[in-house]
Amino acid sequence: MSVTQPAPPILPDPDDPRLTRAVTGTDQTGAPVEIPVVEERPLTIYLNRQEIVTAMTIGDHPDYLALGFLRNQGMLRPDDIVTGVDFDEEVETVVVRTARQTSYEEKVQKKTRTSGCAVGTVFGDMMEGLEGLSLPAAEIRTSWLYALARQINTMPSLYLRAGAIHGTVLCQADRPLVYMEDVGRHNAVDKVAGYMFRHDVTAADKILYTTGRLTSEMVIKCALMGIPALASRSGFTAWGVEIARQVGLTLIGRMRGQRFVCLSGDARLIRDADLASVPEEDRRHRRKGAS
Amino acid sequence: MSVTQPAPPILPDPDDPRLTRAVTGTDQTGAPVEIPVVEERPLTIYLNRQEIVTAMTIGDHPDYLALGFLRNQGMLRPDDIVTGVDFDEEVETVVVRTARQTSYEEKVQKKTRTSGCAVGTVFGDMMEGLEGLSLPAAEIRTSWLYALARQINTMPSLYLRAGAIHGTVLCQADRPLVYMEDVGRHNAVDKVAGYMFRHDVTAADKILYTTGRLTSEMVIKCALMGIPALASRSGFTAWGVEIARQVGLTLIGRMRGQRFVCLSGDARLIRDADLASVPEEDRRHRRKGAS
Repeated sequence: MSVTQPAPPILPDPDDPRLTRAVTGTDQTGAPVEIPVVEERPLTIYLNRQEIVTAMTIGDHPDYLALGFLRNQGMLRPDDIVTGVDFDEEVETVVVRTARQTSYEEKVQKKTRTSGCAVGTVFGDMMEGLEGLSLPAAEIRTSWLYALARQINTMPSLYLRAGAIHGTVLCQADRPLVYMEDVGRHNAVDKVAGYMFRHDVTAADKILYTTGRLTSEMVIKCALMGIPALASRSGFTAWGVEIARQVGLTLIGRMRGQRFVCLSGDARLIRDADLASVPEEDRRHRRKGAS
Repeated sequence: MSVTQPAPPILPDPDDPRLTRAVTGTDQTGAPVEIPVVEERPLTIYLNRQEIVTAMTIGDHPDYLALGFLRNQGMLRPDDIVTGVDFDEEVETVVVRTARQTSYEEKVQKKTRTSGCAVGTVFGDMMEGLEGLSLPAAEIRTSWLYALARQINTMPSLYLRAGAIHGTVLCQADRPLVYMEDVGRHNAVDKVAGYMFRHDVTAADKILYTTGRLTSEMVIKCALMGIPALASRSGFTAWGVEIARQVGLTLIGRMRGQRFVCLSGDARLIRDADLASVPEEDRRHRRKGAS
């Protein structure tokens, strides 16, 4: 079943008590302070009988995280039939079961430690999945990009509550559809990928927005997900730009207020926004970088 | 030989042509722009005959990156004699040779994908290294912390040149000694660790400053390096705070202008700074987050 616009949108739940913890300390004057701090817990992902990886995650959406991680690693195929996703909170494991027998012993041993807030365990052949890949034509209106950035930076989120967290948002036109946050940016994008895989969401008309840098890994994941545009308020790496150009991904970075830079796929952009009407960022909502 | 103050300090070299590339694109108005973008290239690390990991790095200091990665993974012991570090730029490999025979086949297969800008491939027992570890007493003057933050945020760096990069700085009192940057924060801290291992740098009187978040992995690495204080302008994760308290690490985050929060090891802090004299951050130098 193809769901082009999943409803309702999935947005952050900063009030979820499992995701943050109040921690007491002192401030610069020595006065006691209590601040909310994001949780970080292990989740071991199994594919059928095989242990694949242990991720450190805030712990929401373990099912989507497992599905998206396996999908983005090429361990789940687009046509794989998932017969079960079993999460056991007590032992912090999630088991993805497929109709197809799977075996990735070799693959699991081949690692690349990727950049920045990146998966770190990128097994074998993410790059191979890019060969022959070309992303669909699409119109990306700059008015959408500004509207998305404004909404994402101001809507309630764990970032605004506790900081130290990344966000990745699946968007359609000017609407955020799925806004995932996690201590690891790679987890946030994998949770989006898992949602898309689980609900068979069309990618061709979507835009992926990330709070993080446009590294090779983020570009590869976005391309493998079939999404033609990736936007961020953060910067680029040279290899990320190279890969984006290779697969024809529209790559937009350094989105701050009115400004942005497009280093790949400019042809999809329709600059319809009246720049004079785009406000500079409110300081309160300027992301200080989950870094 | 113990070198308590390595000289000269190692600082970023934003003019190194191998580290950034000028990339052309368009801005929000459609006007052509050319911006500097950081490089990101693979480096495969070998320990003697065994391939350990492939890291994505900007490519400076491959020797320190390899040594620090292996040291932080416990694959190099404090007393290991390094008989050679051979970097081959063409095939993008670095081989660390030790007098001791090493074999980590099993270890290499045990992975944890860590949070945020974290190593991602944390083999087996980083946590085990923490058992019984307790960090030395030390005085940490807040005047040093403010002086360090001001220097680090304003000195020439790849971050100020091209953004999208993390920095980790080994400091003594109010002096930055080794300022490493990389697309992966884990690489930056590993390069510092490699420098300390190679030059037998004393850790007890040092402060580690990072631009990134204080996740479990950053706290573990700092503790394993024997450095009693870790400071960041970014935020915390709950597990990072737990581990810091377990090993008695002074953990300071959210350093912005006069403000900071200390969530562990407050006893080491000497609040000698005259807060009235600490300037708010210059907007130009406020890090927007390599994220």
